[in-house]
Amino acid sequence: MHSTRPTLIVGSVAFDTLHIGGKCHEKVLGGSATYASIAAAHFGPVQLVGVVGRDFPDSATRLLRDRGVDLAGLEIADGDTFHWEGRYSEDLSSRETLRTDLNVFANFKPKIPGAFRAAPFVMLGNIDPTLQIDVLEQIDRPRFVLADTMNLWIDIRHAELIALCKRVDLLVLNDEEARQLSGQGNLVRAARALLAAGPKTVIIKKGEHGALLFQGDDVFSLPALPLGGVADPTGAGDTFAGALIGYLARSNDLSTTNLRKAVVYGSVLASFCVEGVSTERLTSATPHEVNDRFEHFRRLTAF
Amino acid sequence: MHSTRPTLIVGSVAFDTLHIGGKCHEKVLGGSATYASIAAAHFGPVQLVGVVGRDFPDSATRLLRDRGVDLAGLEIADGDTFHWEGRYSEDLSSRETLRTDLNVFANFKPKIPGAFRAAPFVMLGNIDPTLQIDVLEQIDRPRFVLADTMNLWIDIRHAELIALCKRVDLLVLNDEEARQLSGQGNLVRAARALLAAGPKTVIIKKGEHGALLFQGDDVFSLPALPLGGVADPTGAGDTFAGALIGYLARSNDLSTTNLRKAVVYGSVLASFCVEGVSTERLTSATPHEVNDRFEHFRRLTAF
Repeated sequence: MHSTRPTLIVGSVAFDTLHIGGKCHEKVLGGSATYASIAAAHFGPVQLVGVVGRDFPDSATRLLRDRGVDLAGLEIADGDTFHWEGRYSEDLSSRETLRTDLNVFANFKPKIPGAFRAAPFVMLGNIDPTLQIDVLEQIDRPRFVLADTMNLWIDIRHAELIALCKRVDLLVLNDEEARQLSGQGNLVRAARALLAAGPKTVIIKKGEHGALLFQGDDVFSLPALPLGGVADPTGAGDTFAGALIGYLARSNDLSTTNLRKAVVYGSVLASFCVEGVSTERLTSATPHEVNDRFEHFRRLTAF
Repeated sequence: MHSTRPTLIVGSVAFDTLHIGGKCHEKVLGGSATYASIAAAHFGPVQLVGVVGRDFPDSATRLLRDRGVDLAGLEIADGDTFHWEGRYSEDLSSRETLRTDLNVFANFKPKIPGAFRAAPFVMLGNIDPTLQIDVLEQIDRPRFVLADTMNLWIDIRHAELIALCKRVDLLVLNDEEARQLSGQGNLVRAARALLAAGPKTVIIKKGEHGALLFQGDDVFSLPALPLGGVADPTGAGDTFAGALIGYLARSNDLSTTNLRKAVVYGSVLASFCVEGVSTERLTSATPHEVNDRFEHFRRLTAF
């Protein structure tokens, strides 16, 4: 069921050291482009653009390639791979950064290989908005561009982020980021302000409370799957966005109805993502399991 | 469309002084039984049991009677009506109590009039669980009993609350209360523990994040209606429960499918409730508006 419409994904590839519930998971695979690529690859071919160091293991490149991720855009630079270390609160609702070693990521300048420039679906993962704009300058006019971001860029690259908004079709951000970027405490008003800034569609992620999709006056609200336990929340947002755009690329249908389905697929893959540490469960989910969980969302929400 | 199956509602009738966004609304109509009764009366006849003081105005009794609320069980005692004063945080997500004058409510002992004892649908609003059990002792075996509660009773009447759980069909509580009563941080596990304590159905209210319905292994999740502004959150939970049981009484159908619809009607009336101060908007909503908003929930959640 794979399409020939590739999804181009630009973002970080990293090692994460995760402290969760008294356990430490050292230097497991992480990064926004990693999670998003594995998620999108559940639906079709992916072209990844990122940078790693000489320490990046063959096992990790093999994992990505085996999933259908084209690594022609994965630069291997002198030095070590980006490494983030963090500790989650007991209820996993928040986390603190213990250490950030940007390493080779500090000088990351995305270089889009010629063969990737015609990708019709593009995900600008969470990196400096200046680089996100730079990516758009390097590629042909894509059919659909999704941009993710984070609080850091809202703080220090506000103008660049607003400029980026005018050039993307879909802005994906979490509730706190939506409030911060729009200056509106109420999420409906925040979404309206963000839509006025440019993107045709805004999705606000609310973690365990689900996601909201805004398009003109149309609103779609999807709860998250209630889970009896979460192993590791890392990468859930990147997974959500990656699965969403991967599904859109496969179906090649940008209607509101299909965008709603894409939000459900995003939530399906995010629910797998948090059930395992790092990308374990996201990687192991089978097409059958993905379809089952999509139907689970139907039962969960039907009335 | 009114049925002849009355809903019996026992709870507080009060005056609230509300500080919201710099404004003070002095001694407006409030109380769990008030909100729940007006909400349930949108669907059929209501029998209210509560207590007020000599200061309770004719305008308030008239408002309730005009909505179809039978006040034969509203005791008028010597003294003043229960008065609560509170201030909401700027984003309305929390509130602090400035003053609680229990007044005549301090000695409230619900007395169920003979004509009310055969009510098939019973809502035990948020009062001392000892009194909630006492109500069950006074009435014939009803078809369906819903109980609401609050953190105070979980703290000081834990054993009584657990005893009550064994005698009710539906326990309605918010996320914090569910965690507190069950001792489980995870809501799915909290619901399982509460179901094991007795009620066939548990509903966990999450405010602006919607509601979860648990029944055996079946889970229904409904997001709240995203609102561009909230005037006054007071009574939203009581309204939710009142509308829910009022709809069940009218439809006389306790299937899982119909319980899901009841959760939607509860959310519909709660969304009106918070759009006005006190019971204003809850009272003014027309049957046409209620149906429109039910369909709005369909559009909001369809994929």
